[in-house]
Amino acid sequence: MRGSIADDLDPLIHERVRLGILTLLSVQGTLDFKTLKESLNVTDGNLSQHLRKLEDGGYIEVHKTFVKRRPRTTYSLTELGRERLALYIEKLEQILKEVKDAGK
Amino acid sequence: MRGSIADDLDPLIHERVRLGILTLLSVQGTLDFKTLKESLNVTDGNLSQHLRKLEDGGYIEVHKTFVKRRPRTTYSLTELGRERLALYIEKLEQILKEVKDAGK
Repeated sequence: MRGSIADDLDPLIHERVRLGILTLLSVQGTLDFKTLKESLNVTDGNLSQHLRKLEDGGYIEVHKTFVKRRPRTTYSLTELGRERLALYIEKLEQILKEVKDAGK
Repeated sequence: MRGSIADDLDPLIHERVRLGILTLLSVQGTLDFKTLKESLNVTDGNLSQHLRKLEDGGYIEVHKTFVKRRPRTTYSLTELGRERLALYIEKLEQILKEVKDAGK
């Protein structure tokens, strides 16, 4: 028996802001805090919180560098993050397919 | 400018249990509480809470009938629920497409 729909979807990914972060990093490669914040239209605190969760889960990695002596923090997907995102998409597509097939 | 990923996804739908409920109702038409509960592997309280939110939002409708004098409650999608689910899927597919194209 397959798992339930809810169980199938990785909760670390299936949250709108985190899905947004992972999508952007997947598409853009590496992004800094400001770009993520502006793209996702969220507050500093909200973004920080979700980035931390993704980092704790090992889905993204944080790079701290200096540009003209000013600190710059960037984020990118880890191999694990990329794998889990691909798996999430696969599960989600199965669900979407069921709904679409039902509508025919 | 398009909205952010997070803003684009209907929060009433984008929650795992609620997405599960809507998917099942979309596929099966009408279902009773017990079937939803077993399919989604959730507690009575959790399921009730999410069903209530979907009903309050006008996405599902509740039917109360009697079968052999015992009350039976079933649920189905409303026209609005069906429309919003279709819109949600459309948005989600755009996001998934971006991720997949990036992986190529």
